[in-house]
Amino acid sequence: MTQDIRTVAIVGCGVIGMGWATLFLSRGLKVIISDPTENAENILKEYFEQSKSYLKGFGDYDELVSNYEFVHDITPRLAEADFIQEVNIPVINGPERLELKRGLIATLDKHARPGVVIASSSSGLPSSEFIQQCTQDSTRVLIGHPFNPPHLIPLVEVVPHPGTSSESVNITLNFYRSVGKRPILLHHEVPGFVSNRLQAAINNEAYSLISRGIVSAGDLDAAVTSGPGLRWALTGPIATNALGGGGGPEGFSQRMERLGPAIRGWEDDILKHRFDWSERRMLALQESVDKSLGAVDWNKLVEERDLVLLQLLAAKEKMASISTPSSH
Amino acid sequence: MTQDIRTVAIVGCGVIGMGWATLFLSRGLKVIISDPTENAENILKEYFEQSKSYLKGFGDYDELVSNYEFVHDITPRLAEADFIQEVNIPVINGPERLELKRGLIATLDKHARPGVVIASSSSGLPSSEFIQQCTQDSTRVLIGHPFNPPHLIPLVEVVPHPGTSSESVNITLNFYRSVGKRPILLHHEVPGFVSNRLQAAINNEAYSLISRGIVSAGDLDAAVTSGPGLRWALTGPIATNALGGGGGPEGFSQRMERLGPAIRGWEDDILKHRFDWSERRMLALQESVDKSLGAVDWNKLVEERDLVLLQLLAAKEKMASISTPSSH
Repeated sequence: MTQDIRTVAIVGCGVIGMGWATLFLSRGLKVIISDPTENAENILKEYFEQSKSYLKGFGDYDELVSNYEFVHDITPRLAEADFIQEVNIPVINGPERLELKRGLIATLDKHARPGVVIASSSSGLPSSEFIQQCTQDSTRVLIGHPFNPPHLIPLVEVVPHPGTSSESVNITLNFYRSVGKRPILLHHEVPGFVSNRLQAAINNEAYSLISRGIVSAGDLDAAVTSGPGLRWALTGPIATNALGGGGGPEGFSQRMERLGPAIRGWEDDILKHRFDWSERRMLALQESVDKSLGAVDWNKLVEERDLVLLQLLAAKEKMASISTPSSH
Repeated sequence: MTQDIRTVAIVGCGVIGMGWATLFLSRGLKVIISDPTENAENILKEYFEQSKSYLKGFGDYDELVSNYEFVHDITPRLAEADFIQEVNIPVINGPERLELKRGLIATLDKHARPGVVIASSSSGLPSSEFIQQCTQDSTRVLIGHPFNPPHLIPLVEVVPHPGTSSESVNITLNFYRSVGKRPILLHHEVPGFVSNRLQAAINNEAYSLISRGIVSAGDLDAAVTSGPGLRWALTGPIATNALGGGGGPEGFSQRMERLGPAIRGWEDDILKHRFDWSERRMLALQESVDKSLGAVDWNKLVEERDLVLLQLLAAKEKMASISTPSSH
């Protein structure tokens, strides 16, 4: 299937859409990207300029970038697409946005050729919430949720709705793998998918500890970046647990048995002091954030972070066993 | 104060004790390390051999390693120590172990010179639980909880008990900084301290998603190592949130306001499906771990992880703004 995908339609030209475009262009694909906004085309050109060194890693910059077209209305061009990546209209809350999303997905479904997958970049809302108005074939609709920026961060979460065909899932997994991404497959829809749930879990305890005055926001961040965060870039929570028990699935089991009682005690205490988003705790949290992060040079931080991130990704790529086990 | 610390007594010669010894030796300090076990001295020698390339980064290997002494009983040597790092007797649960720990801390307190700090490497149990038998000066007892291996992972959690003197806290923070560690300060004791609580929070949701059949153990790990884990090695949860809102403390506040409702929805769903350590869910979890991690070459994984980890740490060291904000 994958070899048939030559042209991708990207619906929406915000930061995520531009990142997807950069990724697909780097792999020599044709991209038709749309946005109704007047200025979007210029911002896109600037984005490609800034991604020049990335794109040059894959071929001649001018040649790769010649493969995109920016349009204001995607509808008349949808029939050309072999894969559709929707990036428009984030539905965080509110029924109006949801109605817009449903209308958009129905339009894509109406004009896409039969069998062409429609992947939405939605960051937490499952696709069963917005296929209601599809008239052609909602079994080809699913979530393909990337991380920012999509051309650098390998993860993409593939989330079918209960009616999505397994063929659409397989086309999507293979296509994403073929452009160098690391897809994970969710077997059932859950709100927030996997990565945002994991982030919500750790963030809640982070907010709790800071708002209780246990630790400053700066020290909280250091507790991750100078500690377990260094591991999580290389081995995930489960492999890290297994290594803590001496390696292997037996190591995981041993660690659960040995440390389980202590961990359950910590969990109970975490639950008891859960961050409740009350005004009082929000204020205490923000106060510590202001104090700890007020003096940070954010432009410098982003620049240096991206430099180290590229080195980290390049170092990981050379290590077969650090590349995480394949999806199944 | 720091310049006066020349000799460190390390009480316990397991993996953590050996890592502490490697760290202190690398910085030219004198180390007296004790363990009652017959074979501990040989294992320690092997550990130093394996850490040769690390130690050589700081000076002449033979010269640095000439600064340690292994003893079976630390008691007669405690008066020589300028700082005591206790690494013995992990108290995970059970009253017998706790009694042993209390006795040990009392012995250290009885024989240490006045003003010498006694730092316990305890991984979750606060020191107020084991100072009961101290007869000299319990205000110098606190937690200095490292991550494994202590000479490579910068984080150390400093946790005073309610009676610990601020002088002891300052000596400890300065000493750890002087040997290249990144101490964080906990202002109150909490079970599990900071990093183990953050890990418990993310792990519980990881176990939950796997045991519910949402995602395989391998894909769960990839959801971290190919996604947010790449960020957490560089920017912690709070700075990552702030960047998500455009940077700065205002970015953090904007993100909380904009995404708060969605995140609270995810949190409610997480709580509803919390991993409960029941036999049924433990079995489902272990089954997926067996399937996903059964074929991993663990020796290769550890070797490659450590190689990339060293590259990552070296890359971070060159970037002033990626080095996390200083403790306060």
